[in-house]
Amino acid sequence: MLVRVLGSGAGGGVPQWNCACRICRAVRAGTRAIIPRSQASAAISSDGVSWFLLHASPDVRLQIESFHSLHPRATRDSPIAGILLSNGDLDACLGLLSLRESQPLSVYATSAVTRGFRDGNPLVRTLERFPDQVQWIELGLGAEVTLRGGDGRPTGLDVTAVAVPGKVPLHLVGRQPPSDEDNVALRVRDRASGRVLVWAPSVAGPTPALEAVLREADCVLFDGTFWSSDELAESGAGERRAEEMGHWPLGGAGGSLALLSQLTGTRRVLVHVNNTNPILLEDSPERAAAAACGVEVAHDGLELEP
Amino acid sequence: MLVRVLGSGAGGGVPQWNCACRICRAVRAGTRAIIPRSQASAAISSDGVSWFLLHASPDVRLQIESFHSLHPRATRDSPIAGILLSNGDLDACLGLLSLRESQPLSVYATSAVTRGFRDGNPLVRTLERFPDQVQWIELGLGAEVTLRGGDGRPTGLDVTAVAVPGKVPLHLVGRQPPSDEDNVALRVRDRASGRVLVWAPSVAGPTPALEAVLREADCVLFDGTFWSSDELAESGAGERRAEEMGHWPLGGAGGSLALLSQLTGTRRVLVHVNNTNPILLEDSPERAAAAACGVEVAHDGLELEP
Repeated sequence: MLVRVLGSGAGGGVPQWNCACRICRAVRAGTRAIIPRSQASAAISSDGVSWFLLHASPDVRLQIESFHSLHPRATRDSPIAGILLSNGDLDACLGLLSLRESQPLSVYATSAVTRGFRDGNPLVRTLERFPDQVQWIELGLGAEVTLRGGDGRPTGLDVTAVAVPGKVPLHLVGRQPPSDEDNVALRVRDRASGRVLVWAPSVAGPTPALEAVLREADCVLFDGTFWSSDELAESGAGERRAEEMGHWPLGGAGGSLALLSQLTGTRRVLVHVNNTNPILLEDSPERAAAAACGVEVAHDGLELEP
Repeated sequence: MLVRVLGSGAGGGVPQWNCACRICRAVRAGTRAIIPRSQASAAISSDGVSWFLLHASPDVRLQIESFHSLHPRATRDSPIAGILLSNGDLDACLGLLSLRESQPLSVYATSAVTRGFRDGNPLVRTLERFPDQVQWIELGLGAEVTLRGGDGRPTGLDVTAVAVPGKVPLHLVGRQPPSDEDNVALRVRDRASGRVLVWAPSVAGPTPALEAVLREADCVLFDGTFWSSDELAESGAGERRAEEMGHWPLGGAGGSLALLSQLTGTRRVLVHVNNTNPILLEDSPERAAAAACGVEVAHDGLELEP
């Protein structure tokens, strides 16, 4: 299986347009060892011909341009056979609307995520220029689904949505009741090699089901949003705690790094890293702590072969 | 008045994600004299302190990062005092949703454009995290409106919306009746200097009102979408003619270049240039024809001082 990280930052990216915290300032000024990051997404393929996007981030246009394997091979064409969504947050799905231009698309998501994005949304009509322009393919919890190419044939990858703790997207609070389908980890299995990738950019806390799916993975792209619960307040960038925003902080006794450190047979890479997270600073003690646990921080363009 | 072109391409940018026409191929391969372009937008200011965006393109995040004057000066802050929309196409307004993160915004648009974007759109709630997060300020046709800063004080710029031929956005066809408010040119006047900028990235054809507003401008950022009516079909990139898509082609006896060539006292710069337009090739006869008329092709980052 081929995996290319297209974006490794959380919603808003690094730097974030309206943020001048010490980290965003350092990225803009080039005064520390830190690089910019676009919003979390990855491209995956079994054969290097048909590709699937994990999320369609608001940065999708430049993310596609950044990776030659995603470039069209005919006048109007795309090697992108489908897009997989793990939740309905705007940083995961807004880029679908940048994939207009009359291109057929297949979108794989739970029915809660699909409804949250589509229902009543007039902008979605830009993706409905002809019948069946978008195939919305349901990911039922725990059911393995075959990822197919434009010709309907299996591409060699299968995906299973696994419910993980999370939250309903901010813009749907009070509009759509919370559901186990709001936020999932995506377990992607390569048929030929049997290798397993887990995409879990939003995880609010541990569960036995999450731990089980992580333990059998060859590679995990995991929620690296926050280092600590009160990071936003400490940065002067907000008031909400990490857990209220659907993210399990990395650090501390109960942090996700303690779990990830145990998965010694798995390549563990953090994505969806927020602009306030000190782990972004390559010379920080937090980055060193992750490295000591065998946990990497993704950068845009990182290539993996689980 | 200070003007910075943030993006000079049409919807989809140059190259476009699903296009491998000769121009998109040349941009990706670097085989011709042509540079990439993000989607049409500009930043304007009277004092260099408070800035206004003309359009919030899907590329707005990187467009803001590309220009230091738009960077925040406090932890959560923005020098962007407002966003002006000249129509409701997604390439003009999708970026509003990338300007979430609890930042107060002022959006100036006609009521038809505001309704088209807001009505029934669940995603807009991401901009409604607290009361009055977004001020939607109506641009009535022909009425000069003062552009104000966050403190309510005039910033030295006034704007007038002038109806020009255009079309209702594709995703609103059949949902919202066509109106003179669907597409406007924005006439921006600097109070101190009296200088006038006209932003007209979508113009389907000439009218006396358009000609009048162009003739009194010091600088015009004008619709450079297509060179010829049948350019999409010739490129194998679609079937619709330029006029059907709301754009007046540049070339030919009845083209917009013939009008622009007469405005010898005005700086004339083309924006919203489609990826199929041969004028993008710096060594093309079409580019030479524009230059011979005194008409420039904008590039991302171009700075003007009307």
